[in-house]
Amino acid sequence: MDLQKLREKAIRVVRAKLRESVREDTLIVQTVSGIDELEKAANLLSKRLREWYELYNPETSRAISDHEMFAKSISSKSKKELLNELKIKDSMGAELKKEDTDAIMNLAEEVKSIFALKHSQEKYLEVSMKKTCPNVTAITGTQIGAKLISLAGSLERLSSFPASTVQLLGAEKALFRHLRNKRNLPPKYGILHEHTLLSKVSPRNKGKMARTLADKISIAAKVDYFKGKYIGKELSAQVEQKAKELR
Amino acid sequence: MDLQKLREKAIRVVRAKLRESVREDTLIVQTVSGIDELEKAANLLSKRLREWYELYNPETSRAISDHEMFAKSISSKSKKELLNELKIKDSMGAELKKEDTDAIMNLAEEVKSIFALKHSQEKYLEVSMKKTCPNVTAITGTQIGAKLISLAGSLERLSSFPASTVQLLGAEKALFRHLRNKRNLPPKYGILHEHTLLSKVSPRNKGKMARTLADKISIAAKVDYFKGKYIGKELSAQVEQKAKELR
Repeated sequence: MDLQKLREKAIRVVRAKLRESVREDTLIVQTVSGIDELEKAANLLSKRLREWYELYNPETSRAISDHEMFAKSISSKSKKELLNELKIKDSMGAELKKEDTDAIMNLAEEVKSIFALKHSQEKYLEVSMKKTCPNVTAITGTQIGAKLISLAGSLERLSSFPASTVQLLGAEKALFRHLRNKRNLPPKYGILHEHTLLSKVSPRNKGKMARTLADKISIAAKVDYFKGKYIGKELSAQVEQKAKELR
Repeated sequence: MDLQKLREKAIRVVRAKLRESVREDTLIVQTVSGIDELEKAANLLSKRLREWYELYNPETSRAISDHEMFAKSISSKSKKELLNELKIKDSMGAELKKEDTDAIMNLAEEVKSIFALKHSQEKYLEVSMKKTCPNVTAITGTQIGAKLISLAGSLERLSSFPASTVQLLGAEKALFRHLRNKRNLPPKYGILHEHTLLSKVSPRNKGKMARTLADKISIAAKVDYFKGKYIGKELSAQVEQKAKELR
């Protein structure tokens, strides 16, 4: 009987621990992957939408390359209006019945709604990032910061990494290719290649710039994880200064 | 000058030909692929939704295996109601703030809306199929019939195929594997394996049943393409008779 009680108590404790293990950064990891997948779904359905709509009005599909813009245009304007805008009198597209265009328009609505959700999730991510790790976000921006946490697995793990690991997060494939056969050069940066400052320095200094960024991100992650005060301003001033020196 | 006129006329003729080349079955091919891709998108986002929601309420996600049902349940009922239904008092999920559950619920709404669109496209496909090829649809049903047209490329091509080709549509990979090395047996059926009658006959008669189905589909496709009268009733009676004999 005592054993039974002990078992129940142990289960209660584990349940509580599991509940507590969900933190802000766990949600951030989910949101980042969610945004990625919304983008994938939107692209998949946009391609189908274009192929389908091109039977009806190929000229407009060719003229608008952005998927979201395209879905918005075709659902807000008629074929005639769209062709007038392009000054085309004799379209190559077929005339379709209303029920056939309706099916296409329903798909266009869905594509629009997926893009809209993606934007709202991005805003939610921005708010969470600023709250959970203001210092990292100050240096990297929302997207790259969130991806770093997602690649590391959690803010806790990111904060425990040395700067050299942070620098190569997202470049695992290139790194191990280098380690296997020494012919390939080691990678200089992983996900950090998306950072705007990297595009501002000269090609031969990109490695140095990535190292500086990783240094500061590593400091910022530690401060964020242990809920230190906000030093994002100083850190981002430092990396920008470095970017100017390395231009 | 005459050459200029001739050129303009030629372009006009080609434009008109292109416009006319879009037929009902072209739209069917698009719709079939569209439905496939909606399903892919719905599954992709459903998996994310579950992983995300399981931080909040893992028990409900485990209890409902159907993706659509799951999205509907969590967006119509609160966590408390859902746990009461399962008679669970002590959930392992964490308590989340309203803005965090809102982000999850938005994704659930999107998943629901993609499933709803998929159902409406399936209905549209059913109507188109019954109008464009009533005879083929009478034997195969909407889904398989539409996939056969999609695999053939058009109703015209499907009607020009011999029955043996119809039988193997969708089994091209297995067929060519057999032709390359004779060790593998030739496939007995392609997409037709999804037909309900095939599951009703004994395993050793499945090949025969597929051949009968393909025979009748091939006849039906020719009648449909040349706009003959409706003989779907006789044809489907014949295949059902055959299925009884081969049971």
